[in-house]
Amino acid sequence: MANSPIKSPLPESDKEVTGNILQATLVDLVDLSLIAKQAHWNVVGSNFRSAHLQLDELVTTARNYVDEVAERANAIGVSPNGKAKTVVESSGLPEYPDNWQSVESTIAAIVDILAEEIARLRKRIDETDKSDLVTQDLLIEITRALEEAHWMWQAQQA
Amino acid sequence: MANSPIKSPLPESDKEVTGNILQATLVDLVDLSLIAKQAHWNVVGSNFRSAHLQLDELVTTARNYVDEVAERANAIGVSPNGKAKTVVESSGLPEYPDNWQSVESTIAAIVDILAEEIARLRKRIDETDKSDLVTQDLLIEITRALEEAHWMWQAQQA
Amino acid sequence: MANSPIKSPLPESDKEVTGNILQATLVDLVDLSLIAKQAHWNVVGSNFRSAHLQLDELVTTARNYVDEVAERANAIGVSPNGKAKTVVESSGLPEYPDNWQSVESTIAAIVDILAEEIARLRKRIDETDKSDLVTQDLLIEITRALEEAHWMWQAQQA
Amino acid sequence: MANSPIKSPLPESDKEVTGNILQATLVDLVDLSLIAKQAHWNVVGSNFRSAHLQLDELVTTARNYVDEVAERANAIGVSPNGKAKTVVESSGLPEYPDNWQSVESTIAAIVDILAEEIARLRKRIDETDKSDLVTQDLLIEITRALEEAHWMWQAQQA
Amino acid sequence: MANSPIKSPLPESDKEVTGNILQATLVDLVDLSLIAKQAHWNVVGSNFRSAHLQLDELVTTARNYVDEVAERANAIGVSPNGKAKTVVESSGLPEYPDNWQSVESTIAAIVDILAEEIARLRKRIDETDKSDLVTQDLLIEITRALEEAHWMWQAQQA
Amino acid sequence: MANSPIKSPLPESDKEVTGNILQATLVDLVDLSLIAKQAHWNVVGSNFRSAHLQLDELVTTARNYVDEVAERANAIGVSPNGKAKTVVESSGLPEYPDNWQSVESTIAAIVDILAEEIARLRKRIDETDKSDLVTQDLLIEITRALEEAHWMWQAQQA
Amino acid sequence: MANSPIKSPLPESDKEVTGNILQATLVDLVDLSLIAKQAHWNVVGSNFRSAHLQLDELVTTARNYVDEVAERANAIGVSPNGKAKTVVESSGLPEYPDNWQSVESTIAAIVDILAEEIARLRKRIDETDKSDLVTQDLLIEITRALEEAHWMWQAQQA
Amino acid sequence: MANSPIKSPLPESDKEVTGNILQATLVDLVDLSLIAKQAHWNVVGSNFRSAHLQLDELVTTARNYVDEVAERANAIGVSPNGKAKTVVESSGLPEYPDNWQSVESTIAAIVDILAEEIARLRKRIDETDKSDLVTQDLLIEITRALEEAHWMWQAQQA
Amino acid sequence: MANSPIKSPLPESDKEVTGNILQATLVDLVDLSLIAKQAHWNVVGSNFRSAHLQLDELVTTARNYVDEVAERANAIGVSPNGKAKTVVESSGLPEYPDNWQSVESTIAAIVDILAEEIARLRKRIDETDKSDLVTQDLLIEITRALEEAHWMWQAQQA
Amino acid sequence: MANSPIKSPLPESDKEVTGNILQATLVDLVDLSLIAKQAHWNVVGSNFRSAHLQLDELVTTARNYVDEVAERANAIGVSPNGKAKTVVESSGLPEYPDNWQSVESTIAAIVDILAEEIARLRKRIDETDKSDLVTQDLLIEITRALEEAHWMWQAQQA
Amino acid sequence: MANSPIKSPLPESDKEVTGNILQATLVDLVDLSLIAKQAHWNVVGSNFRSAHLQLDELVTTARNYVDEVAERANAIGVSPNGKAKTVVESSGLPEYPDNWQSVESTIAAIVDILAEEIARLRKRIDETDKSDLVTQDLLIEITRALEEAHWMWQAQQA
Amino acid sequence: MANSPIKSPLPESDKEVTGNILQATLVDLVDLSLIAKQAHWNVVGSNFRSAHLQLDELVTTARNYVDEVAERANAIGVSPNGKAKTVVESSGLPEYPDNWQSVESTIAAIVDILAEEIARLRKRIDETDKSDLVTQDLLIEITRALEEAHWMWQAQQA
Repeated sequence: MANSPIKSPLPESDKEVTGNILQATLVDLVDLSLIAKQAHWNVVGSNFRSAHLQLDELVTTARNYVDEVAERANAIGVSPNGKAKTVVESSGLPEYPDNWQSVESTIAAIVDILAEEIARLRKRIDETDKSDLVTQDLLIEITRALEEAHWMWQAQQA
Repeated sequence: MANSPIKSPLPESDKEVTGNILQATLVDLVDLSLIAKQAHWNVVGSNFRSAHLQLDELVTTARNYVDEVAERANAIGVSPNGKAKTVVESSGLPEYPDNWQSVESTIAAIVDILAEEIARLRKRIDETDKSDLVTQDLLIEITRALEEAHWMWQAQQA
Repeated sequence: MANSPIKSPLPESDKEVTGNILQATLVDLVDLSLIAKQAHWNVVGSNFRSAHLQLDELVTTARNYVDEVAERANAIGVSPNGKAKTVVESSGLPEYPDNWQSVESTIAAIVDILAEEIARLRKRIDETDKSDLVTQDLLIEITRALEEAHWMWQAQQA
Repeated sequence: MANSPIKSPLPESDKEVTGNILQATLVDLVDLSLIAKQAHWNVVGSNFRSAHLQLDELVTTARNYVDEVAERANAIGVSPNGKAKTVVESSGLPEYPDNWQSVESTIAAIVDILAEEIARLRKRIDETDKSDLVTQDLLIEITRALEEAHWMWQAQQA
Repeated sequence: MANSPIKSPLPESDKEVTGNILQATLVDLVDLSLIAKQAHWNVVGSNFRSAHLQLDELVTTARNYVDEVAERANAIGVSPNGKAKTVVESSGLPEYPDNWQSVESTIAAIVDILAEEIARLRKRIDETDKSDLVTQDLLIEITRALEEAHWMWQAQQA
Repeated sequence: MANSPIKSPLPESDKEVTGNILQATLVDLVDLSLIAKQAHWNVVGSNFRSAHLQLDELVTTARNYVDEVAERANAIGVSPNGKAKTVVESSGLPEYPDNWQSVESTIAAIVDILAEEIARLRKRIDETDKSDLVTQDLLIEITRALEEAHWMWQAQQA
Repeated sequence: MANSPIKSPLPESDKEVTGNILQATLVDLVDLSLIAKQAHWNVVGSNFRSAHLQLDELVTTARNYVDEVAERANAIGVSPNGKAKTVVESSGLPEYPDNWQSVESTIAAIVDILAEEIARLRKRIDETDKSDLVTQDLLIEITRALEEAHWMWQAQQA
Repeated sequence: MANSPIKSPLPESDKEVTGNILQATLVDLVDLSLIAKQAHWNVVGSNFRSAHLQLDELVTTARNYVDEVAERANAIGVSPNGKAKTVVESSGLPEYPDNWQSVESTIAAIVDILAEEIARLRKRIDETDKSDLVTQDLLIEITRALEEAHWMWQAQQA
Repeated sequence: MANSPIKSPLPESDKEVTGNILQATLVDLVDLSLIAKQAHWNVVGSNFRSAHLQLDELVTTARNYVDEVAERANAIGVSPNGKAKTVVESSGLPEYPDNWQSVESTIAAIVDILAEEIARLRKRIDETDKSDLVTQDLLIEITRALEEAHWMWQAQQA
Repeated sequence: MANSPIKSPLPESDKEVTGNILQATLVDLVDLSLIAKQAHWNVVGSNFRSAHLQLDELVTTARNYVDEVAERANAIGVSPNGKAKTVVESSGLPEYPDNWQSVESTIAAIVDILAEEIARLRKRIDETDKSDLVTQDLLIEITRALEEAHWMWQAQQA
Repeated sequence: MANSPIKSPLPESDKEVTGNILQATLVDLVDLSLIAKQAHWNVVGSNFRSAHLQLDELVTTARNYVDEVAERANAIGVSPNGKAKTVVESSGLPEYPDNWQSVESTIAAIVDILAEEIARLRKRIDETDKSDLVTQDLLIEITRALEEAHWMWQAQQA
Repeated sequence: MANSPIKSPLPESDKEVTGNILQATLVDLVDLSLIAKQAHWNVVGSNFRSAHLQLDELVTTARNYVDEVAERANAIGVSPNGKAKTVVESSGLPEYPDNWQSVESTIAAIVDILAEEIARLRKRIDETDKSDLVTQDLLIEITRALEEAHWMWQAQQA
């Protein structure tokens, strides 16, 4: 399928800038959803149940925005790519360790991962200010959700 | 965490056999869930809507069994690993193409992927007959669901 | 449509054995659903309401498994046939009388019909042990449901 | 049970006319529900999923009116008969073919069957104008539902 | 309030005929709802629970149509009157006995009361054929519901 | 049925006192439910819709407590009587006028009726303090609900 | 599309009469739904909230019947037309004023519009008595709903 | 855990009296829930279904109050004990027979058991009048529920 | 009603600019809702059911935003106008053809209409950047929804 | 509004006593709802999530009783006052600290606050025994709920 | 807890500006929720019920945004303070009068309070344009909701 | 009731083996449900809430399977016995201590009890392989559920 079957509402250069941002965000969020599931299964320790449940909420948050971002890419005429291989090659998130993890190290890892993703999203909010306000609005919404999650995970470290 | 924090209800050798089967199934199903989402976003053509919706049902099926399988691994004292990198390294499923795909080639790819996974699951059902009937029961349940899906995707090729 | 549009996950001989069993079960269960509805409408007597409601639950049970069985036949590449004529020609259930029936004779007839169907299902469970464990699992599930119903109908005869 | 246990609100001759009409309608609708299920399982082709789902809606419509008609027969003191054998002996609907069917021939068959049933119902609406307005009202309601379905199936042939 | 605040869509004579019919039906149905509640509380005997529940369904049926009838009276510009005193003065239903009643005599009384109300409604259906088809349609609907209930109560006497 | 089929948990004299109180309350509340429905249908004026809806909430409140009170009477071995005739003969509530009523006079009538019923209930709370604390608790609950309604109807007169 | 793709269950002349009636009703009801929304947004005055909510219920009623009528037209082989231009050209309803309106004039306008539509519907009920009883039944149902609404709006003028 | 970790809102002697009453009630109600389940499974006879369902409602009632009572004990600083051994050693309820029981003897046994428990509860209501009004209120609520059930079970014996 | 009864939170000139934009958007969206319904009823062809359902989702989207936009106009003190006549006079959308339409031409028309509306909305997003950020946020939200729909309709043309 | 628009069902002195008690309880409970929200937002530490969720349940409990108490005040003819200033001036609860708090000190503070409020409520239960049994019943209900909460918060300190 | 346990995604100065804005908004909205409840309980007059219900919707709106704002403060590393004392000391809303209020003065007070809060929010939207776009987006959302409420309250004054 | 009123679908010896297994499982699971409730009420310590909630999920699991097992016994013609006395005499589970327990010792006790029950169930799965595949399937399902619970309780000990 050489030519895009979806016409973009954006001029070519805005489409390219915005499309790259959406694709990068998609990959990060797929990775986040897999990491949160991995942590959900492998957390152990006296606060197991709380962390186990909270991680599943994070999975849900990540999965919902994965869909929004992929559909937004389509809406501006860019094919989204969220396959495992693409995630491994281009995700910007720190790696998550193998094997069971204590609640404490689970929390620490999730806090770091969220902090990294929030920083990346805030840069993208700035970049879309020129290229596409509609995409910017979606990025702001995702950032609000992840910053709220970030607080809730940090609150357990105090 | 050198020693497993979870005691297995199975003797060591059964645990090893069963654990390997569950880990392999987990990786396949995570891959299936990512592939079905990729197809869900990238399908185009006159039957777009039907295929788009049916792919999301496949995502749901895959995700539900991903959880069952990972939790079953934990239940027999084996740490499940469903990270992107692990999926890329060990999934047994054929690769799914990049970019938008026509409805026809989407259907063809999904039919092949399901056929491959069903064959792999049927072998594992035999292998667990000796090692763990409880895990076997779960594999039978997953096979029933995927064989039903397999029929529904094939039915569109007739 | 000379050739099956659905490829079977089973080798040919297992497919034939299993397909025959599923088709026979399908016909019995369609018949059971029609008989239970007939009884639901035609029962009279002082316990009318209880029997009337309980018969509708039996209809629901039968209808749900009719669908599961027909879809399982498709899943192994066999076209299911649940038409009225096929039911008349091949159902293994005793005939149900015409006209209004007392609660007592309704119960007696339903108990006999369930006993007959359970005996037939138990034979099929044995036969599928070799041909297809996935189908066997479905037959076990149906048998559990009908044996529970069988108790509840017998309990009224004590 | 020689005498009817249910007193009719209708005079004898109106009861006979109306009872025959309700029994004939019951048989047709049971047949319709079995045919639609048969088609639901055996349809194949590129529009499989749409047809598969739409056929199940037709099953639901048919089943709901089967119940209404049988209960209306009881309400006027006539025992309803919806057994498989009765359906085979007295249904007025065209036979449905065995085996998998393409979407196109499935649609064509359903359109013909609905057209036939609608014609039969319209005659019965006229006949009940004298014998029982309450039954007529039910027949009008069924006709409205089947004529709506008839349009939706025809719309796919255009 | 000397003049009606609601303009009738009917000419004066049709309004009068139809209004009288609706008022008479309203009173009967309020009475039916009170009788069914009285029976609901006072039934005793080995089938107590079934009768107790079925009577509450009759209460619900009666109450729903009470509302429909009263609102229909308003719709044609006639003030509905469903007060206790009006019910005592003008209900056409047989009186229900005081005190606890056996299941058998409860059933017998309800069957008689429903038969009486059905006969009255069928006369009113004829009378509204000339005066107001919209009201006739409502009376047909009520008759259908009460004749179904009538069957279900009679079925327990067989 | 000469002897009560229900044994009372209360000694004879407490049963008599409490039974009379429950029967009197039952009659008042049935009357209240019919009056509120009458008002619901016949209210007119610029605040019609608010009053119409609020009256139906009063109907629901009255009907719920009608059931509680009748079942409480049964629970202490007293047959409840809520028939129209009994209501006309023994209700303690002021009569409600025939015909459409303005919102203002509707409100005024409802406020008076509620005030009367509350006064009667408060007397009965005192009387049951000696005869049955369980019944007293029910009367307190009804009084709380009616006093809340009383405020809401008065609030519209300010 | 020169020829109708939908075969009519009616003979040609009945189809024409009935089709014209359905098309005229469709246009009126689309107009009613737009007028009620317009009024919903533009009503002001001390009873604003009640009127605002009640108008939205009228929108819902109108929209539901718009769909029923359009689908009924299709069912008899007539293409329905509910576009804005068609509504402006052929609606039979009085025009609704621009700008904010007081509650009183809103009520007055709605009462007039409903009265007009009811008169038109009652004529059409008569006309379909010969051409199509199924359509007549739908028109009776719509009339019942609008006459009930008509009462509720008038009740506020008293 | 030598000292109570929960401070009581009651003075020591009131706490002791009330605590004993709550513990005794807890044991009775756990026993009631097990007896009702036992009866639910073992009832046979022509009214099987009604009794089977009604017994499950009694299980639900008993279980709900078991929780309320145990949590109330905690609330006043007393550790609740509902283990099987404690129930066997201190329940005040009559023993329920082993094996299947006819509907009649099931009803008789349940009526006796409820009568016994109601008598015990009424004594406890008196005793808590001095020690804790909050606990008394809970006991009154339980008594109301069990007396209602008592009526419903007796009603079947008439 | 010469003067606006609603005070604007915006200075006069911003109110005028924003009000004009909201009124224009309102008209377009009312038109879109009527066009989508027209298409929903008149689409025919082998993909009828998919298109029929998808068009109703578009109706729902359009209707929801119609309400949001009209209420936003009120919120800034501008009377919204969504009457049929206003729509015909000022909608910016291309006209939709009369009569039944094939699925293909239906899709083509909807794609064009959405593209046109998206272009108009994007211009308005720019214009409100100065006049009212709150309204701009609403326009961004509508654009996101319509661009997603635009993709889904285009995807069927590939 | 010099005179109370709501007539009290209580004599003047009972009304005054009861009114003061309700007003004092209202203020305490509004304060409790604000404190619990404050704690909900500001708790930090390893059990953050459990405490965060449990505090929101306490907010819900407090808010529900705030409404019951305020409406009860109205019901006896006393205007309730729950404004921030009134709360600051007359709440009887200990002050809650500013800023983030550890889970431990959060629990300690909540336990103290609940203990204080329970003591105050128990005094009021005694005082209303003479003035108003209906209000007493509400206070008993609130006390039961808060004593249960008190146990659950203390249980975390063991 | 001297140091903030929550790291801010914002640079220090943006955090301070944004934090002050969020704290000020929090206090205003807590106050609004208490005022709206106060008004909900104390409104009297002929439109009591409408105002009473509409005020509770305002409470819900205010409470929901209270939570969003407090959690947003946490998300940027600022401890939120919504205690009664803080509200009294720093809320920017006009005071609400004590005692029962007529519907008219209730509406007038609410309109003024909303107008004041909207003005304050619009200033804060401007201030956050530089400090934090994510917080700005939340403020825009709150403003949209309050401006819609503002219209609905004003509409009743016309 | 000397003879079983329920005919077994199993030959006598299979029935005896299977019946003993089901009865033993029933007793264990009733005991588990009582122990889990006991623990639910008596757990104390800083993780109280998590353990308290998780124990109630275990109660629900145990209760559901108690019902399945008892009904399965009936289905094979064996009377189930789940009375307190039977539980005390024949349960195979370790005893649970009296009085409040710390979270740690609660977890330890539950882990041991689950381990014991799992071992017993795994032996029974083997034994039913010859006597009844339907019962075996139920035991496998229970084992899967308890092994999952076992992991979740162990995970807290890591």
